[in-house]
Amino acid sequence: MRQHRQAILFILSGPSGAGKDSVILGLRATHPDLHYAITTTTRPQRPGEVEGVSYYFVSKHEYDRLADHGELLAPANVHGHWYGAPLAPIRKALGEGQDVLLKIDVQGAMQVRRRLPQSACIFLTTPTFEDLVARLVERHTESKEDLERRIQDAHFEMAQMPQDDHCVINRRDDLTAAVTGISCIISAERLRIHRQPISFDTR
Amino acid sequence: MRQHRQAILFILSGPSGAGKDSVILGLRATHPDLHYAITTTTRPQRPGEVEGVSYYFVSKHEYDRLADHGELLAPANVHGHWYGAPLAPIRKALGEGQDVLLKIDVQGAMQVRRRLPQSACIFLTTPTFEDLVARLVERHTESKEDLERRIQDAHFEMAQMPQDDHCVINRRDDLTAAVTGISCIISAERLRIHRQPISFDTR
Repeated sequence: MRQHRQAILFILSGPSGAGKDSVILGLRATHPDLHYAITTTTRPQRPGEVEGVSYYFVSKHEYDRLADHGELLAPANVHGHWYGAPLAPIRKALGEGQDVLLKIDVQGAMQVRRRLPQSACIFLTTPTFEDLVARLVERHTESKEDLERRIQDAHFEMAQMPQDDHCVINRRDDLTAAVTGISCIISAERLRIHRQPISFDTR
Repeated sequence: MRQHRQAILFILSGPSGAGKDSVILGLRATHPDLHYAITTTTRPQRPGEVEGVSYYFVSKHEYDRLADHGELLAPANVHGHWYGAPLAPIRKALGEGQDVLLKIDVQGAMQVRRRLPQSACIFLTTPTFEDLVARLVERHTESKEDLERRIQDAHFEMAQMPQDDHCVINRRDDLTAAVTGISCIISAERLRIHRQPISFDTR
């Protein structure tokens, strides 16, 4: 009765400090069927981050080589560092019918959206701007200068939210609610009629 | 930071025999926060159906009085009987910010959609047309004549699916999957940005 539906690219963005990485850790449990795209970056590795899981950490030289060869999706300078998602694994997963989750900065999300309008965009944020700042300060992963830059950039990032499809609030004491929300968005998006090549035989 | 979002009217439709009533029983457990609109009908009460829960069973005379006074949403003759959802309780719930789930025939769903384009439409169906016929035959609730009419009407009903937003397949051995699917659609729809009157203060 039905062919396979087209694979979906889910874009998870939101300001720095919203909790994208924590949410993805939770999602890996509820949605092991997704391909989680790993981003390449020139930013220094933070304590606890794992090469090839959190990011691919590369030199600026190597980043430039990848970008010049067109191998990165939405290459962008964010908060003073370079980011970009390797295109080949994303293309491969989508081509094989596997849905992809791409964690990406707000700027990058807008670029990908323009290129792939069929993607489903999820914006993750905190209940208030103050919560966002508090989270950034408390994680102690940035230098003072880096921190100030991220807070400043967050003004622009928050303003881009209306261009997304869904908005999920990550409350300090309830990460599970945010994970469940995104998990439901993924399931519901798969049930959208325009995603499904349905041809009922009603003879 | 945010006002309340506008309440959503969820429309659950699909061909006769798809299992709308069974799914709603399951939904009442996962989503007790919804207002479940009860339809008024002139069709005879089936064994097991409860007045005021399954339907409001009324005479044709009483139905006409309600329809003439404009008290029914999408009044329609379906499979030879008259149906219509009392407007007042739906208006009241939505006005108070409570989301509403309206179970309605395919014809009625199209009417409501035209009147309230912001509503979220979910089409419930079986994996194949044969499954639908089998379900209708097995439930033994219709006369032979009624049954044939419903099967005939199902051709038209199936063809209307592309006008809905989501399609959920109710598999014979997995009612839970259908309930979970609709439950996720409800949660995800509430997270859609265009439903939310968000005004972030990013000063």
